[in-house]
Amino acid sequence: MEKLKHVLESQQFSREWLENELFPLAAKMEKIVKEQGVWPSCKYFFKRRALSGKRMVSFFYEPSTGTQMSLEMAMERLGGKVVYSSDHAGETSSIAKGETIQDTIKRVSAFRPDVIILRTPDEGMANKAAEFSTVPIINAGDGKGQHPTQAQTDLFTIKKEKGEIEGQHLVITGDLARGRTARSLAYLSAKYPGVKISFVSPEMARIGHDVKDYLKKHRVPFEEIYDIREVAPHGDVFYITRIQRERGGDILFNYGPPSFWKMNQEVLNLMKKDAIVMHPLPHLDEIAPEVDKDPRAAYFRQSENKLYIAMADLNMILK
Amino acid sequence: MEKLKHVLESQQFSREWLENELFPLAAKMEKIVKEQGVWPSCKYFFKRRALSGKRMVSFFYEPSTGTQMSLEMAMERLGGKVVYSSDHAGETSSIAKGETIQDTIKRVSAFRPDVIILRTPDEGMANKAAEFSTVPIINAGDGKGQHPTQAQTDLFTIKKEKGEIEGQHLVITGDLARGRTARSLAYLSAKYPGVKISFVSPEMARIGHDVKDYLKKHRVPFEEIYDIREVAPHGDVFYITRIQRERGGDILFNYGPPSFWKMNQEVLNLMKKDAIVMHPLPHLDEIAPEVDKDPRAAYFRQSENKLYIAMADLNMILK
Amino acid sequence: MEKLKHVLESQQFSREWLENELFPLAAKMEKIVKEQGVWPSCKYFFKRRALSGKRMVSFFYEPSTGTQMSLEMAMERLGGKVVYSSDHAGETSSIAKGETIQDTIKRVSAFRPDVIILRTPDEGMANKAAEFSTVPIINAGDGKGQHPTQAQTDLFTIKKEKGEIEGQHLVITGDLARGRTARSLAYLSAKYPGVKISFVSPEMARIGHDVKDYLKKHRVPFEEIYDIREVAPHGDVFYITRIQRERGGDILFNYGPPSFWKMNQEVLNLMKKDAIVMHPLPHLDEIAPEVDKDPRAAYFRQSENKLYIAMADLNMILK
Repeated sequence: MEKLKHVLESQQFSREWLENELFPLAAKMEKIVKEQGVWPSCKYFFKRRALSGKRMVSFFYEPSTGTQMSLEMAMERLGGKVVYSSDHAGETSSIAKGETIQDTIKRVSAFRPDVIILRTPDEGMANKAAEFSTVPIINAGDGKGQHPTQAQTDLFTIKKEKGEIEGQHLVITGDLARGRTARSLAYLSAKYPGVKISFVSPEMARIGHDVKDYLKKHRVPFEEIYDIREVAPHGDVFYITRIQRERGGDILFNYGPPSFWKMNQEVLNLMKKDAIVMHPLPHLDEIAPEVDKDPRAAYFRQSENKLYIAMADLNMILK
Repeated sequence: MEKLKHVLESQQFSREWLENELFPLAAKMEKIVKEQGVWPSCKYFFKRRALSGKRMVSFFYEPSTGTQMSLEMAMERLGGKVVYSSDHAGETSSIAKGETIQDTIKRVSAFRPDVIILRTPDEGMANKAAEFSTVPIINAGDGKGQHPTQAQTDLFTIKKEKGEIEGQHLVITGDLARGRTARSLAYLSAKYPGVKISFVSPEMARIGHDVKDYLKKHRVPFEEIYDIREVAPHGDVFYITRIQRERGGDILFNYGPPSFWKMNQEVLNLMKKDAIVMHPLPHLDEIAPEVDKDPRAAYFRQSENKLYIAMADLNMILK
Repeated sequence: MEKLKHVLESQQFSREWLENELFPLAAKMEKIVKEQGVWPSCKYFFKRRALSGKRMVSFFYEPSTGTQMSLEMAMERLGGKVVYSSDHAGETSSIAKGETIQDTIKRVSAFRPDVIILRTPDEGMANKAAEFSTVPIINAGDGKGQHPTQAQTDLFTIKKEKGEIEGQHLVITGDLARGRTARSLAYLSAKYPGVKISFVSPEMARIGHDVKDYLKKHRVPFEEIYDIREVAPHGDVFYITRIQRERGGDILFNYGPPSFWKMNQEVLNLMKKDAIVMHPLPHLDEIAPEVDKDPRAAYFRQSENKLYIAMADLNMILK
């Protein structure tokens, strides 16, 4: 099994690694969790659990529930420990006293945890942290930057739900200018042949030029449209995202009628029978309540997959 | 031993269950803690501790020290783990981003913790959460609603301090309109024959009609009075509660002279020699400093009992 | 090995204890950490780790990263558990509801943790807490009071970097009126013969009279000056501290040119080749970026030493 150093951005992962290493291991983890097993399978001697003796430190400078909990739960399930965990590090850590991220990471890694989870408010901070860290870092979201474990989870979900990622038509909607999950997913799915992407958003919430340049360079067909209904009959995977209120997305709240870029019964009615609806969650009204009952709603299954991907990532980083 | 699903509200527990299951187990837990033992008694093999391998997740949307710490300490004492714990979940969890409690619980329970502790700001949220959870939920306080583990602790304390709960005259004082501990205690003590209750509070802080209707239905004699001194010579158990500043109770601060509904030397002087003073703690000036020295002050012993009740509850839910 | 009760203030430790007990044990801990060993050395049976079965509770009423993480990491490394940890206890604990520190400590110690870590906003609170606690308390900083584990770390660092503490000329700069680390270091280093201290600060940030009286009583030569350059060629240990913005130190920000009491290339150029620069961290601009590259910069090594001192303290308190 390939040893993983840091998890920083979607571009770092090859399709081969995802298909041959990460996804099979995540699937194995799912099986273990569902059968209440342990990993590795010998369960008679406590010390032998996969990550026994390993220590995680997590700094969340912005709120999260799914990402933080899935990583911490994964760590404990594999026998490791969450030693220090701050879910509002921006207020309580040394950063609040004005320390740079470099200095914080230098000090923290000197205490020799085995992995550092980092959610930061600004793009590029995880990469900067990794430069100064003697310990593996998992980027759990860096401002408007990326969210690579989410992107891994998203592709794993598409694979499970649709059988394969190749050839899928992705429809990605929402506040694409500010949402990092949309960015990370676009980067990662571009590695699969036959993928095409429709970005649906208001003009002022268009996806960044770095993503578009990347897609062009890798010859991934994409389009930018205004109305989800236009593409509803053709899409295979509808990836809905939240308005990023905490990043200045408030101006979008009154943009257009709901069916322009939200998921509701009207859009569902236009969609293929085997399409799926995804969302990194939590969602607000960009998903109408009636969607929950539709079998095509895959977002709660997607959320659960975060646990299995976290277990697989941690296992590959720490073994 | 009867398996417990959720701990949601006082009404769910029968007197028989409290007397024959919960209290004896809590007493056993107290013995174990005081003799520094482990449960079950075989201590030679680490994996065999009662809750070994069990994982707790706790969401406190409002501050607590006693409840959160007693539950987390209980979990660890029994060999289980607190995997994720937020003590200000209202700011840092997905709820802060606008997610409904149902969705949060659906996502959290998909990560397969073994028990979820939930303190929520609004009445009824714990019940709603339990509907959507695949995992046992302990309601650690839901707004003005209930606080069932506190009520269990309160009755356990009365039992220990007074020998029995039957026939006791309870004097419950404070901000009864907003305090959930008073409500939960009234509901639970009503299951014991011979209990009567004097509710002491200003007019505008009277206990809710749901409680009074319940007491009438179950033929529990009660009265509502203004001045604690009136009932001081007769009461067996004085249950003092705090003004709920965080729930709009501020208007009560200047109400009447202290002896109207607070505990001080003047009231102590009127009380029976074997009466006890209880309080869910923390207390403010509704208990005067001199009361601490009186042997009838049972509130620190009551606080300690939270640990034993938490251990018993967790054991019954998770075994 | 001498059993340690509480860690409350620098004055409580004798030079003999530091030299013969604490520092050798901390050095042993460093070796263990660096060789990825366990303590005690028998690693085959999980239950036998030094602090196995011990439980730590930590209340940080003010932000910290280094102190909290080093203590929690130390606890876990020795096999103990951090059961409850609040890093903003001022907002979320019972103190936020108006409870006194005495009552909080009485309740918390009744839950029988094995050690309580306490960082409080007001001077003397740790001592007051210790009076009411049945459990050992480590003062992790009490307002403008003291920070004894930091002072232990500081002396341990001087010992390691300079070979011995005796005879060193300490230059302590910064907001000495508000900074507790400077105070604790002055108290503790005064126990070593031949130590002399130059306090460098603006007039309005002079070190407290209690410290000066203590130094006079113990015949420790000291001076108070305005310009670090005056003493730069003579000092052995330059202990730079941060302006205490959270304690009203803001008025100092525009005081004098940087070289009056900050560390930068100009000051480095005047210093001895074997002098060292220390700082309790996090630092702001009182240390210029170029200092990091100078081999005399010892502050990151000093920060790492916190872990070894924490391991030694916990081992002595809990064994």
